[in-house]
Amino acid sequence: MSDTPKSFAERFAALRAERGPFCLNLDPTPGLLADWDLKDDIWGLRRFCDRVIDSADRQLAVIKPQSAYFERFGAAGFEVLADIIGSIHALGSLALLDGKRGDIGSTNSGYADGLLGPDSAMGADGLTVHAYLGFAALGPILERAQKLGCGIFPVVLSSNPEGRALQGARLPGGETVAQGLADEITTHNRSVAGDGVGPVGAVVGVTAPEAPSIVERLPSSLILAPGLGTQGGTFDDVATRLGSARQRVIPCAGRSVLSAGPDGDALARAIGEHCEAARKALT
Amino acid sequence: MSDTPKSFAERFAALRAERGPFCLNLDPTPGLLADWDLKDDIWGLRRFCDRVIDSADRQLAVIKPQSAYFERFGAAGFEVLADIIGSIHALGSLALLDGKRGDIGSTNSGYADGLLGPDSAMGADGLTVHAYLGFAALGPILERAQKLGCGIFPVVLSSNPEGRALQGARLPGGETVAQGLADEITTHNRSVAGDGVGPVGAVVGVTAPEAPSIVERLPSSLILAPGLGTQGGTFDDVATRLGSARQRVIPCAGRSVLSAGPDGDALARAIGEHCEAARKALT
Repeated sequence: MSDTPKSFAERFAALRAERGPFCLNLDPTPGLLADWDLKDDIWGLRRFCDRVIDSADRQLAVIKPQSAYFERFGAAGFEVLADIIGSIHALGSLALLDGKRGDIGSTNSGYADGLLGPDSAMGADGLTVHAYLGFAALGPILERAQKLGCGIFPVVLSSNPEGRALQGARLPGGETVAQGLADEITTHNRSVAGDGVGPVGAVVGVTAPEAPSIVERLPSSLILAPGLGTQGGTFDDVATRLGSARQRVIPCAGRSVLSAGPDGDALARAIGEHCEAARKALT
Repeated sequence: MSDTPKSFAERFAALRAERGPFCLNLDPTPGLLADWDLKDDIWGLRRFCDRVIDSADRQLAVIKPQSAYFERFGAAGFEVLADIIGSIHALGSLALLDGKRGDIGSTNSGYADGLLGPDSAMGADGLTVHAYLGFAALGPILERAQKLGCGIFPVVLSSNPEGRALQGARLPGGETVAQGLADEITTHNRSVAGDGVGPVGAVVGVTAPEAPSIVERLPSSLILAPGLGTQGGTFDDVATRLGSARQRVIPCAGRSVLSAGPDGDALARAIGEHCEAARKALT
């Protein structure tokens, strides 16, 4: 077992004990660049990310860069993204890439090759994915992630109202699409991780009405929980609504924290306060 | 109206009249690189793509690069992708990026900024997307695409068996997820394009059992139809099964064509034969 890398879940659990479970969304939006008096160009992007990294220091368990805001700048943006993932690792934090990739079969191997694990170009520890083509179609990316000790986070239930109809549609057995996906994730995790926390997590919006019941169907998953801060949820909501997964929730927020910048000290304090609040609410 | 760019659908219709409707999947898989005696590195990737471009010449209406096989090489791969999209344009073909992106709200603007239209870093004319977060959540990317004359292709119905349960789940009104998505696309296209073909197409797998009925719900969409060649479908299948959309189908294949390489003449012939067969079957 000595050359099996530690799993994403094991690494998160260790960081959680030390730093609390909070995940900072690294979302260099055009609006935030403007608020920070940075130009909307590749240098503004790099400076924004460097400042966040400086203020984050070793406070955070997880940092989640949003791929779209790097892809805005094409190859140069992808280069900044790879550099920043290196900086995230230098802080001892996990880099969870929010790229919502997802295709069939061998195409997913392509994404895994490029984005996941220390030998890839991007080097991320985790990746968000879409399962519209069926959870089983993600097979190659799941296998690769497990081998590399990475985490895969399919979107299961989102808090935006536009997603409700599709995610609440009924499968032949009567369960919803989100429930069916949760069950497939759990079956998969049990098959590869037994009673432990498996390599497949789930994105579950905190404020989605069905969030508490979905999380109960995901007993062996890390739960990536957006919907905090500017999206309306609080850490107490997370604790109340997703309580059955309390040890496994990764609550995340971006704008409500990043708006404390550009002042480095103020941003560092805002990050620290969020880490502390998440730890208090969830441990 | 003079500064409104021509729509993806108008540009496709003109190319179709001249070249036929065939779309070549530009899938530089590790397997194909090996078959072509190319190294699995950035130089092999570039050489592979350059050879395809040379053989394609001005034969093709559409070329569809698969983002995953470029992302394998990180920022350097993204740079090759942007260069190749430039080469595709130099051939007068449309570049449809198969990236299956998709998120909520402003994040989608990030993808549009980076990937779509002549002023973006990537410069693609079209993009495949996922709608698991709800079709309406794609709003910003749809608006941008329309303004830029680009095409957006949500995956509606796939031919892989793993996708059937989710895509066939029932919405409250009794229609399936795929049907509901098709109806939303049609409503959107009618609202922005009247009786014409709108900016939102659809990915519909040729061999999916429900393909014929789904296509009937998409009267104002281009239909991107994978599932040909090594995936089992033929151009006659496309004509028979998707006949109601005959003028609007973009049939695509990759491996069954690319396996004619690395010899440039053989590849050029295979591309020409596919263009001719698609034209015969669909006009």
